[in-house]
Amino acid sequence: MAQLNSNYLKLKAGYLFPEINRRVKSYCDANPDGAARLIRCGIGDVTEPLPAAVRAAMHNAVDELGDRSSFRGYGPEQGYDFLRDAIAESDYRSRGLEISADEVFVSDGSKCDCGNILDIFGSENRIAVMDPVYPVYVDTNVMAGHTGEPNDAGVYPGLVYLECTAENGFVPEIPTERVDLVYLCYPNNPTGTSATRDQLARWVEYALANDTILLFDAAYEAYIKDEDVPHSIYEIEGARKCAIEFRSFSKNGGFTGVRCAFTIVPKELECTTDTGERRPLHPLWNRRFSTKFNGVSYVTQRGAEALYSTEGKAEVAALVDHYMGNAAILSEAVRACGLAVFGGTNAPYIWVKAPAGFTSWDVFDKVLGEANVVVTPGSGFGQAGEGYFRISAFNSRENALEVARRFQDLTW
Amino acid sequence: MAQLNSNYLKLKAGYLFPEINRRVKSYCDANPDGAARLIRCGIGDVTEPLPAAVRAAMHNAVDELGDRSSFRGYGPEQGYDFLRDAIAESDYRSRGLEISADEVFVSDGSKCDCGNILDIFGSENRIAVMDPVYPVYVDTNVMAGHTGEPNDAGVYPGLVYLECTAENGFVPEIPTERVDLVYLCYPNNPTGTSATRDQLARWVEYALANDTILLFDAAYEAYIKDEDVPHSIYEIEGARKCAIEFRSFSKNGGFTGVRCAFTIVPKELECTTDTGERRPLHPLWNRRFSTKFNGVSYVTQRGAEALYSTEGKAEVAALVDHYMGNAAILSEAVRACGLAVFGGTNAPYIWVKAPAGFTSWDVFDKVLGEANVVVTPGSGFGQAGEGYFRISAFNSRENALEVARRFQDLTW
Repeated sequence: MAQLNSNYLKLKAGYLFPEINRRVKSYCDANPDGAARLIRCGIGDVTEPLPAAVRAAMHNAVDELGDRSSFRGYGPEQGYDFLRDAIAESDYRSRGLEISADEVFVSDGSKCDCGNILDIFGSENRIAVMDPVYPVYVDTNVMAGHTGEPNDAGVYPGLVYLECTAENGFVPEIPTERVDLVYLCYPNNPTGTSATRDQLARWVEYALANDTILLFDAAYEAYIKDEDVPHSIYEIEGARKCAIEFRSFSKNGGFTGVRCAFTIVPKELECTTDTGERRPLHPLWNRRFSTKFNGVSYVTQRGAEALYSTEGKAEVAALVDHYMGNAAILSEAVRACGLAVFGGTNAPYIWVKAPAGFTSWDVFDKVLGEANVVVTPGSGFGQAGEGYFRISAFNSRENALEVARRFQDLTW
Repeated sequence: MAQLNSNYLKLKAGYLFPEINRRVKSYCDANPDGAARLIRCGIGDVTEPLPAAVRAAMHNAVDELGDRSSFRGYGPEQGYDFLRDAIAESDYRSRGLEISADEVFVSDGSKCDCGNILDIFGSENRIAVMDPVYPVYVDTNVMAGHTGEPNDAGVYPGLVYLECTAENGFVPEIPTERVDLVYLCYPNNPTGTSATRDQLARWVEYALANDTILLFDAAYEAYIKDEDVPHSIYEIEGARKCAIEFRSFSKNGGFTGVRCAFTIVPKELECTTDTGERRPLHPLWNRRFSTKFNGVSYVTQRGAEALYSTEGKAEVAALVDHYMGNAAILSEAVRACGLAVFGGTNAPYIWVKAPAGFTSWDVFDKVLGEANVVVTPGSGFGQAGEGYFRISAFNSRENALEVARRFQDLTW
């Protein structure tokens, strides 16, 4: 009989967000008044309109498809040159970083890229993830058979967990053992913290010394304000030899529903074959795109290109300012409650230490029940997230102000 | 050192279409007059404008995203209910087939689905493909490590090749050995032939008897004219227990550049775990979508929904009539040359037997050089395709008529 992929059966059934939805629904069903006041600061989904420059470009692209002479069918799987060039030029070369257009792979989302990237790696790599962590990094490794069965706390043997706590500023210590692949996410989801140039330089140094590949997720790059925080891993010398970078238009351009992202795979990156030869990764990722993907919608790619126009850049800046304004309001309010607040200055997430005696889910239940606000329990992102909770700044200003007021009324 | 997926190194470098492009470029560089007359009947890409109903829906969706009150961010990974419901109702229930909306998984392309489906299967399955075959089925199995190194003819040990020839009407014999997964594509790419109800019923009978899963690719379903040719594998009794069906909007709605498709995974489908228990596949595919995908662009999904409107259905019918009109013209012209012609009545491809003494590439070179028309050599689709060539009917009527005239001038 046909056999299924039994690794899927190791996945914990209770993914974080379904459990949040279950508790919110249960509360709302029992409390119609609370339900009416509910404000969600949970999932990191944008709330503000798609930029006008993007919409104009998408309208235009739809019209082009309606005319035989400008109709476009299959495009290049890796993305149209107009977009790959815009990305390479605006995000890298204009900042002095040597990335060529054919090292840019345009996809329909960073979540897909972070999962699919495992296709081009072998099955014997030792893999490290941060803890707390974006669950997709862990789950896709479980699905690929890189782990054993999880324990009750959801820890999977076979993965190396790099603890991120207030003590290390949520930037993990360099491992004492060697690992082959390391997922790093900065500015970080879920903690909203960032890594300095020096901290990233130590990771690149480690990677070069150990022939390790860094999988660098920079989905929140647009939110960086501090001069000392790199926007790209390639700002660190040597990173072209050890790092893949994931970027997305979801959080800068508001593309969570439009779907566009990209991955940078430098041509210098090498791994070993089964027989121990060094080979470049770029042709493998290129082949994966050619064989298992047919490119992002032309309409979407034209929309993404518009984010690099003068008007588009101004609209992105305004969106970032809006969400970061919310972050400042929320951070201040939560700090005023006497709670320790992290992140929120170079990222749209605020990471809060729960009061003594409260677990992450205790805080979730209290804030839901007393303030009718949905936050995200830190333990949902891993063991080291226990005792923290995340507040998302993706909201209207009105809602952010209202959440701030409600936090001030809470007593702990 | 980090290890790459060495299975990728088994892939034949010379994928069919790059080699075609190389020969066309070489010819055109040397023959400017021929280059000016060039007509491409190679890749199966649509040429006619995107339907007006689709464009109107996409414009409307773009505008919705520009208004805070109607903005949509992340949607359900598996697709919006409005589209899953439209598909289940129009493509299945209205035709008497029991498929529920939550068995419909909306994706950004059948190529992706055909490749990604392997994620949910184990690594020990015995896999059969038709020969000639859509190369993606083979290559994704190579990438997943299900084969050995290919021989010089590009045949991979570990795969069972089911020969499709004029003798069996391009519908393979039921295997005498048992296999776990079988890829079937009807109406067929590349041969343009179709399978009757009786033929498909024998495959379902085999699958049920052997606990085999049929991977049924019905991307060209809209082109079926004959009453006796099923539009869906689920028209065959028992198929809900043994078949996954892939469908696409690429070839009916002209979505090759817009990107939308879907897969049906019935809840009855079961496979075994490593420890021999039977488990349903539906939760695994659902989990894959949740974890490695973030849904198709909202704008695209609204466009796809419009294909099910009264106006949209009429436009699809007109597109199909247009391309099938081309197919009739081309079939007639090639037949008039004295060549044996297959397909082209329930699919937009014509499969032609090369004259005695001609290989597939001989024909390719002759037709390119003498008629300035690009066809696809059958051998590019597998060993059993040697001695055939494919002509695509995706073109303007003007070009189809011109190609027909040029074929009449060829002497063999």
